[in-house]
Amino acid sequence: MRTVQVELGDRSYPIYIGEGLLERAGELFALHEISRKSKLLIVTDDHIAPHYLALLEDRLQAEGYQTKAHVVPGGEASKSLQVYEEVMTTAIQAGLDRSSTVVALGGGVVGDLAGFVAATYMRGIDFVQIPTTILAHDSSVGGKVAVNHPLAKNMIGAFHQPKLVLYDLNTLLTLPPREVRSGLAEVVKHGLIWDEAFAGWCDEHAAELLALNLPALGYALERGCSIKAQVVSGDERENGQRAILNLGHTIGHALEAVGGYGTLLHGEAISIGMVGSAMLAVGRGKPADILPRTKSLLEKFELPTAIPEGWEDEAILSAMMHDKKFREDQMVFVLPDRIGKVNIVKDMTVAEVKDVLGRLREEKQHV
Amino acid sequence: MRTVQVELGDRSYPIYIGEGLLERAGELFALHEISRKSKLLIVTDDHIAPHYLALLEDRLQAEGYQTKAHVVPGGEASKSLQVYEEVMTTAIQAGLDRSSTVVALGGGVVGDLAGFVAATYMRGIDFVQIPTTILAHDSSVGGKVAVNHPLAKNMIGAFHQPKLVLYDLNTLLTLPPREVRSGLAEVVKHGLIWDEAFAGWCDEHAAELLALNLPALGYALERGCSIKAQVVSGDERENGQRAILNLGHTIGHALEAVGGYGTLLHGEAISIGMVGSAMLAVGRGKPADILPRTKSLLEKFELPTAIPEGWEDEAILSAMMHDKKFREDQMVFVLPDRIGKVNIVKDMTVAEVKDVLGRLREEKQHV
Ligand SMILES: NC(=O)c1ccc[n+]([C@@H]2O[C@H](COP(=O)([O-])OP(=O)(O)OC[C@H]3O[C@@H](n4cnc5c(N)ncnc54)[C@H](O)[C@@H]3O)[C@@H](O)[C@H]2O)c1
Ligand SMILES: NC(=O)c1ccc[n+]([C@@H]2O[C@H](COP(=O)([O-])OP(=O)(O)OC[C@H]3O[C@@H](n4cnc5c(N)ncnc54)[C@H](O)[C@@H]3O)[C@@H](O)[C@H]2O)c1
Ligand SMILES: [Zn+2]
Ligand SMILES: [Zn+2]
Repeated sequence: MRTVQVELGDRSYPIYIGEGLLERAGELFALHEISRKSKLLIVTDDHIAPHYLALLEDRLQAEGYQTKAHVVPGGEASKSLQVYEEVMTTAIQAGLDRSSTVVALGGGVVGDLAGFVAATYMRGIDFVQIPTTILAHDSSVGGKVAVNHPLAKNMIGAFHQPKLVLYDLNTLLTLPPREVRSGLAEVVKHGLIWDEAFAGWCDEHAAELLALNLPALGYALERGCSIKAQVVSGDERENGQRAILNLGHTIGHALEAVGGYGTLLHGEAISIGMVGSAMLAVGRGKPADILPRTKSLLEKFELPTAIPEGWEDEAILSAMMHDKKFREDQMVFVLPDRIGKVNIVKDMTVAEVKDVLGRLREEKQHV
Repeated sequence: MRTVQVELGDRSYPIYIGEGLLERAGELFALHEISRKSKLLIVTDDHIAPHYLALLEDRLQAEGYQTKAHVVPGGEASKSLQVYEEVMTTAIQAGLDRSSTVVALGGGVVGDLAGFVAATYMRGIDFVQIPTTILAHDSSVGGKVAVNHPLAKNMIGAFHQPKLVLYDLNTLLTLPPREVRSGLAEVVKHGLIWDEAFAGWCDEHAAELLALNLPALGYALERGCSIKAQVVSGDERENGQRAILNLGHTIGHALEAVGGYGTLLHGEAISIGMVGSAMLAVGRGKPADILPRTKSLLEKFELPTAIPEGWEDEAILSAMMHDKKFREDQMVFVLPDRIGKVNIVKDMTVAEVKDVLGRLREEKQHV
């Protein structure tokens, strides 16, 4: 079992990564003094529940925990105020009190939703995450929880750190392959922003990771979580350096919005965005090898590096300006200095971005 | 102008109390570095808006603030997730960003609702309170914000401290008299739990306070806020001593629920509850004068001290057990030791409480 400690003063918590942790859930909850006095609420989705819910409930009950489960439909649409209210209703009807704990068994959707319930039920109760996607290594660090407003994503939320994260690698074996690749894009991102050696390791071990080799995955998730933890520890509330985590996200978010959410998965969209950031950086005089190295790394993970045909520059650019409220020649981007190090650049011009969008549309897809 | 500083480390903030503070809102916002870059959202209700909204907007705009107002219907029903979502929609449409501030102009309802919006809009933005009721002196200290769930009051919320509280005494002049009395019940409570001399001062100045003599009110609100601030500073998240603020509330909440919310106002209900607590304390051997002194003090404020006719003990008791999930002979009560000092007692029996409910029904109303 690997452990990453997220250091946030009195809100510090461990992430355990390993095979078979669901079997040990009861024991690990007890070790971390999750209260047995009050009921636990497990939130999960209907893709995950058939595989893992019974096992989790069984292992918790065997250690004396009382549990209640709430299963939401799989997919981003469950991150809504309406589903949030339904989960709250279940929590109240099940008699959860201030000593209760909300447990998220699932990917980023379930984690964000259940985390926001935990942050606001009776003004905040304990929270445990049991991530079941690779992408959720990202959401398991940093305490950002949220639901979407019909007008904008992640608009309603809080910062609420979990007490404990249990990452059972076995659960990843049922992940759809496209979700595997999308999640690995965020792992690669953590290498690109912080650790050249880890980026190189990803490059070498891409095939194993795609094949869900569990020891390789365990190492990749440990490094991913621990890089994110280092960044977040210095800036819990996102006032400064935490922004470097957004490498590829300015273009990526715009692509997700223009395509309609779900057309491109999040990891796919930021993959294209990271190629765009490399182009912008090279255009500003950074070493030319950043671009081919970034591209070939992402291609090894079978991730897209080009904007799909027919998506208009104007629509993408306007989504970008709208999302971040940029002014004309003061667009903010996270750009690589080299592989393993990034900078925040605040004076990117619309002309430079337009140029790069054009080049990203012409990129050949090598997949 | 009087100032109470609420000491909570890097979440400390001042409460300004005085006449004509609305006129100075722009200046005071600027002094406290409320950002002028981003739009302010003023949340208020339709009883308050006709009196004070135009003045507030005018004074803020005169100092260079851009404002948007959202007016909700007056009354507890506006503390709902539905109204919360409507306020969020306004905030997004008005283009509020992470540097924006939510301003609550109103009583506890508007304060709790707007505060929960501020706590969760983009994971938390700045919050300023402009209380317009006497009762809201209580909600302006401590950072508790919430909306109601159809199944239970204040179930969904957060702790979110304001940056600043502006208490303009002039706004209290339009308060309905019953709201004045109800609010003064919480002022008296602060004397009863913490400060015998202040309880005595209230006793002497009841007539002036009821007549809305502003210098007297200013002093009473200053003392009320500062007592609450002292209690809260030692226990921001309500793990211990903060519970003493609940004097009279165990019985009071049950009475509010049994009567149907709105039948008894909150201050009226806790007034009866405080008499009950005095009875319980005397029954446990505390000085006998606690009871007549508590009763006569509340009567001076024309507050009820008896349970209305026809309200069944069984219903009240079951609301109490349900609300706090007490076990049979381990009911938790805040009880006076003497005037100005209370204790938390955890082994109150159903029999003792039943006896006191009986006596509270037989109390003669002297009002
Ligand atoms: N809080 C944060 O810091 C943060 C960071 C990144 C992303 N996010 C959020 O995370 C969400 C995306 O997360 P995600 O990619 O995990 O999406 P997800 O939770 O929707 O999971 C992707 C899909 O895989 C299914 N699934 C999950 N685990 C499975 C398993 N083990 N076996 C079979 N199927 C499984 C899900 O039902 C879903 O259909 C977005 O809403 C995003 O905003 C949050
Ligand atoms: N957050 C906390 O710590 C805390 C503490 C105590 C109470 N509360 C909450 O506060 C609420 C009760 O607060 P409240 O008693 O202020 O109720 P309120 O906000 O409903 O105000 C009472 C009534 O007076 C009207 N009103 C308010 N100011 C006025 C003015 N200046 N002139 C004319 N009319 C005016 C309102 O429209 C309303 O009809 C409850 O929801 C309670 O849960 C919260
Ligand atoms: Zn991301
Ligand atoms: Zn109260």
